Amino acid sequence: VNTEPGEVTVTNGTQQALDLVARVLLAPGDRVAVEDPGYVPPRLLFQSLGLQVTGVPVDGEGLIVDAIPRNTKLVYVTPSHQYPLGMAMSLPRRIALLAWADRQNAAIIEDDYDSEFRFGGRPIEPLQTLDTTGRVIYVGSFSKTMLPTLRLGFLVTPASICDAVHAAKYVTDWHTPLPTQNALAAFIDQGWLARHTRKMRTVYQERHEKILDFVDAHFAAHLSLVPSAAGLHISALAKTMSSTEIEEWVQRAAADGVAVQALSMFRVADRAMAGLVLGYGAIPVSRIDAGLRILRHARTTGATRSR
Amino acid sequence: VNTEPGEVTVTNGTQQALDLVARVLLAPGDRVAVEDPGYVPPRLLFQSLGLQVTGVPVDGEGLIVDAIPRNTKLVYVTPSHQYPLGMAMSLPRRIALLAWADRQNAAIIEDDYDSEFRFGGRPIEPLQTLDTTGRVIYVGSFSKTMLPTLRLGFLVTPASICDAVHAAKYVTDWHTPLPTQNALAAFIDQGWLARHTRKMRTVYQERHEKILDFVDAHFAAHLSLVPSAAGLHISALAKTMSSTEIEEWVQRAAADGVAVQALSMFRVADRAMAGLVLGYGAIPVSRIDAGLRILRHARTTGATRSR
Repeated sequence: VNTEPGEVTVTNGTQQALDLVARVLLAPGDRVAVEDPGYVPPRLLFQSLGLQVTGVPVDGEGLIVDAIPRNTKLVYVTPSHQYPLGMAMSLPRRIALLAWADRQNAAIIEDDYDSEFRFGGRPIEPLQTLDTTGRVIYVGSFSKTMLPTLRLGFLVTPASICDAVHAAKYVTDWHTPLPTQNALAAFIDQGWLARHTRKMRTVYQERHEKILDFVDAHFAAHLSLVPSAAGLHISALAKTMSSTEIEEWVQRAAADGVAVQALSMFRVADRAMAGLVLGYGAIPVSRIDAGLRILRHARTTGATRSR
Repeated sequence: VNTEPGEVTVTNGTQQALDLVARVLLAPGDRVAVEDPGYVPPRLLFQSLGLQVTGVPVDGEGLIVDAIPRNTKLVYVTPSHQYPLGMAMSLPRRIALLAWADRQNAAIIEDDYDSEFRFGGRPIEPLQTLDTTGRVIYVGSFSKTMLPTLRLGFLVTPASICDAVHAAKYVTDWHTPLPTQNALAAFIDQGWLARHTRKMRTVYQERHEKILDFVDAHFAAHLSLVPSAAGLHISALAKTMSSTEIEEWVQRAAADGVAVQALSMFRVADRAMAGLVLGYGAIPVSRIDAGLRILRHARTTGATRSR
């Protein structure tokens, strides 16, 4: 990320970063585009501010830029690890999105969550680094690398809106608490965050691969994994089941004590994708096989029951 | 304060409490009333949200209820210790304000800052306790009792808007950081906050009285103290000087290393009161006399210089 100190604003996580940007750039009735399927809390925020929120479909390369509606003032994307599907936005698509923003005089919020947990492969340049015309607002979070309850994230804003973002933060809540900021700053300065991230990258990669292996071995007839090389979750598209059947499967698994999510939970428009989101941020690798066996059982018992 | 657990929302200080209320109750263009003179950050917030902000004059009994403009949707007041003047809102004025809110279908934000530091006299019932129709939103803060950089405060809302306030908090930044909340909860549970408040009440009262004595002895010809029995600052109205002369005095005192504020800094409309605000939250009692002597010197040297 290219930046100067004055262009960074510490926020209470990603959610407040988006709120500050919306306060500065948008007015009620303005159109905002989000990914569909996509991360839900930003959409709820934008809707609560009276904005017109449109879901734009994604494909294997990320957001389909040509599908962004006219008169969109801002687009919110997760290019490193599309939430919830998990693929990275391709370089051509990033370049197309930047060109779109420039043409439309629009802004892009790049939510770079999970970029710290990349399991090989070369990272693609962030939109923020590719941007030459000050269109991109970059959002980072310590919720995944550290702890969500810390509520620590940050914004990197183009110079043109720094003062306005700082003013928006001031009127909102003055500043993010200094005790937590100071603790994190010491943690970073002493090299602990880098060490923690390195360690957890190995841990998460092991869990990631464990899930890949199980899905390949036991769900190949029903699920197709979305290629992904980063993060704390993996998604799989249904080959044979409808989104309703997936939702029922998820409910049965939950009743058996295994928490997975239906992809349809993340839809914006009516077009629900049928699939599963498998999170592994909080499960030890030793318990993954047992959990997935329960998930497998919940699928077939359900099929039997419903006949 | 009368409340149930579900009616309390922890916020990042008073400022965010007001932001949440505004999100829930107000739309751009709505009219909000604030005290004039009054606390500045809420006014900046309300203006940033596109609200019509009107300053309503105060007298020795607090906000002049009859001067609230028609069509006001919300009024923000500091009844325990009017900021910056320091008097308490009288009971008749409180009752009149509640009746006004009921008649106009309006809401009241009661910012009860500084109520913990009361130096004798019986406290008047909070608006929140007097309210029988769910008009009052009560705001408390730990910025004065603990530390402003903690960013911890809370809202007590009428049952009718609790769900909306919780949703507004969620879309804004999910929740206030748990590490600081947990630390404060332990500090309260173990009796340390009560102990700290008791101790500081004595400390602040000593500073308060030191200032009263000095002003009586040395500024009686120029300043008239606003009766006040609480808090971390005291205000004095000018008897002979204009608000411009006061501002020049404050600037000269600042150049000499003494920080006081001109009352005119807190004006909303053009009617600036001429006077001084003397804060004593951060000065040891042993240094007050020396500081006030410099302040006294800055007044006369200025008068000499300008002749």
